[in-house]
Amino acid sequence: MIRHLLSAADLDAETATLILDTAAEMAALAGREVKKLPTLRGRTVVNLFYEDSTRTRISFEAAAKRLSADVINFSAKGSSVSKGESLKDTALTLQAMGADAVVIRHPASGAPHRLSSWVDGSVVNAGDGTHEHPTQALLDAYTMRARLGRLDGLNVAIVGDVLHSRVARSNVLLLSTLGANVTLVGPPTLIPVDIAAALSKTTRVSYDLDSVLPDADVVMMLRVQTERMQDSYFPSAREYARRYGLDVPRMRKLPEHAIVMHPGPMNRGMEIAPEVADSPRSTIVEQVANGVSARMAVLYLLLGGKA
Amino acid sequence: MIRHLLSAADLDAETATLILDTAAEMAALAGREVKKLPTLRGRTVVNLFYEDSTRTRISFEAAAKRLSADVINFSAKGSSVSKGESLKDTALTLQAMGADAVVIRHPASGAPHRLSSWVDGSVVNAGDGTHEHPTQALLDAYTMRARLGRLDGLNVAIVGDVLHSRVARSNVLLLSTLGANVTLVGPPTLIPVDIAAALSKTTRVSYDLDSVLPDADVVMMLRVQTERMQDSYFPSAREYARRYGLDVPRMRKLPEHAIVMHPGPMNRGMEIAPEVADSPRSTIVEQVANGVSARMAVLYLLLGGKA
Amino acid sequence: MIRHLLSAADLDAETATLILDTAAEMAALAGREVKKLPTLRGRTVVNLFYEDSTRTRISFEAAAKRLSADVINFSAKGSSVSKGESLKDTALTLQAMGADAVVIRHPASGAPHRLSSWVDGSVVNAGDGTHEHPTQALLDAYTMRARLGRLDGLNVAIVGDVLHSRVARSNVLLLSTLGANVTLVGPPTLIPVDIAAALSKTTRVSYDLDSVLPDADVVMMLRVQTERMQDSYFPSAREYARRYGLDVPRMRKLPEHAIVMHPGPMNRGMEIAPEVADSPRSTIVEQVANGVSARMAVLYLLLGGKA
Repeated sequence: MIRHLLSAADLDAETATLILDTAAEMAALAGREVKKLPTLRGRTVVNLFYEDSTRTRISFEAAAKRLSADVINFSAKGSSVSKGESLKDTALTLQAMGADAVVIRHPASGAPHRLSSWVDGSVVNAGDGTHEHPTQALLDAYTMRARLGRLDGLNVAIVGDVLHSRVARSNVLLLSTLGANVTLVGPPTLIPVDIAAALSKTTRVSYDLDSVLPDADVVMMLRVQTERMQDSYFPSAREYARRYGLDVPRMRKLPEHAIVMHPGPMNRGMEIAPEVADSPRSTIVEQVANGVSARMAVLYLLLGGKA
Repeated sequence: MIRHLLSAADLDAETATLILDTAAEMAALAGREVKKLPTLRGRTVVNLFYEDSTRTRISFEAAAKRLSADVINFSAKGSSVSKGESLKDTALTLQAMGADAVVIRHPASGAPHRLSSWVDGSVVNAGDGTHEHPTQALLDAYTMRARLGRLDGLNVAIVGDVLHSRVARSNVLLLSTLGANVTLVGPPTLIPVDIAAALSKTTRVSYDLDSVLPDADVVMMLRVQTERMQDSYFPSAREYARRYGLDVPRMRKLPEHAIVMHPGPMNRGMEIAPEVADSPRSTIVEQVANGVSARMAVLYLLLGGKA
Repeated sequence: MIRHLLSAADLDAETATLILDTAAEMAALAGREVKKLPTLRGRTVVNLFYEDSTRTRISFEAAAKRLSADVINFSAKGSSVSKGESLKDTALTLQAMGADAVVIRHPASGAPHRLSSWVDGSVVNAGDGTHEHPTQALLDAYTMRARLGRLDGLNVAIVGDVLHSRVARSNVLLLSTLGANVTLVGPPTLIPVDIAAALSKTTRVSYDLDSVLPDADVVMMLRVQTERMQDSYFPSAREYARRYGLDVPRMRKLPEHAIVMHPGPMNRGMEIAPEVADSPRSTIVEQVANGVSARMAVLYLLLGGKA
């Protein structure tokens, strides 16, 4: 097993499958009302968040608490620590306080990797800049497998601002490892061809959502970061919704069995229509539930062997 | 037993009495140094606060932890969630993460009711706009019963800005159900007669505090929200304190056994004189302690049967 | 045993030694992977912080959780409580909610002492104004004893803005009690002679760091609060670093066995050079780890006897 989870690229097919299988066991236990496992009793998980992300923080907190770990939330944003202290000194401090795992969200790509060089405990990347968000990719893969029975050979369209999306990057890496075929869809300015090539040789690119839908098993809509709408490489909001938003007519072009995913929180009416978000094809709520199971699996496998 | 606690009007006399009796058992256990009950082990209680209210949040947190539940605090104020995401999507997210109960404080009247239509777990209203704050009414009723031995037939004066007070509304509803006689006291602009009538047929209104005191068993002073003092329907601060503040001469008009209540935090010198707040008649500190017992009882009864 | 820990002056040599010995036991247990003790199960520790201090708050939180206490974090800064409510009413509220210990950080010197007069539980001063920070002194003493084998007769130089440093004050008091010889070093404007005299008759003062180093067993560098650099009694940053910063040439003047301490967070390049901070003489990371052990010892001894 790996010691840290910094990038989806760290996971080979065997390790990724082990995590997904473990997440399935966690979900099965929760389904049988076994909501608290003693596995990580006495272990301390620190949520070190340099950016607000209540959803992700709560998901990791719930996962750690179900494993009986102690959780310490450390919102570095706006604290004296974030002002005066280097990431290294913060790392050494958390390590000295006995953190067995540090879950880090940071605006700078690569921060979790640097952190991992300074601590003995495990580091889990909960999103770093525009780089990666590997537990999101794991929960997404888990959701696809749970709904469609397999990952190998699946056609997955990832739609939106791929250029700035850590969710997209981690998904491309993990899905490629697990044998799915990824197509990146969005405006040309938001999908540099070399990005797709750099991530995986099998990833394709399309600028035409409608042509991709009939063959897709999965459509994953990325969140539009509306503060980016001012940027010159971004179409207007109306133009974006018209060309790359998933509305009901577009949803009808999908095969019968296809599912619609979104990492949340959604901009209803922008990248996804409310009727699509609430349709039976949508896995958006399942993704949240699967996020807790996937994070339980990651913490369990990273920390469980050391007891 | 009810599934949610959204309004004091949801509680019939039998259910309300069951909650008060259960709270008394919780208090008795705490008095015998049994401070931790295993009842809700493995259950997750989310404190979803769209307004700052450290006192109420801490009271629910202490109550849930004494029942061995896991507590996740979710301060939606200022988070990305509160900006971008609808209450419905937040509700579905919390549900998917496995929240067994959501304790919600929200500036909009009715928000807890809407939340309850979207989640399988229990919703507890911890204050919504100017609407209701039912656990405050429960702890207040508990306090009256503990001090005076009964609720039926008690004369309770609620004094202050009734128009904007969720504490007053919930108290009128619960006290009427439990047989107490409520008189609302304050400036005419702050007590529309139809409000009293709408809440309960037996509720009376008075604009003259001094005439009400000699027959009162309980005087409940409402907190003045000083930011409302600018409003045209509000007297000046000095005028308000002179006419509706509870000072020592006024306290002397009360019967020997009568008690003085306040939901806190107090504006000492405005609606209540420091000597009154600190007198033996005052139950203000007991109310805080009883708040933990009452909230333990609510969480226990809402969640306890599902294990 | 004492009931509160408000000042290092409250600790006689016997009590201080008991705390240090207990901290050593806590550290030994953690070293044998016994990370969770059941000692304070059912007890509630409230962290009442009127100033941001993530490091100190996390250290107390980790200490309390390792003893199985329930921890409630109460950031009073910016809350409605801090605006409207007196410290006394907050104290009575926390007491009524069943807080067994209140750990308080407050910008006003003396606030913990006032708090202790209003509550039945234990009060631990986690830093009050420019007054004291007694658990910092305990962890520092623990660190010296662990590294150098004793405290009695040690020569300890405390260097920097002594005038405004609660760390310095608490250290002078505790170290004097335990038999160490303290020399305060810094610009004359930051070390009024009467302060040293008032703290302890054996404390000396020097304005020349270089002359102190050859005889020092311990050099404790204080954090420069850069916002104070504007003040007229403060030298310029460059001048300060040149005269009172600990760089490599200065470190070489120390005896072979001497150690370098800092309470953190450091201004690397200001009061301490990076090479010194990361040298084997530096105990900065150990101090953090020892902080958890020392705070466990304090909470254990203050609360443990009441079960």
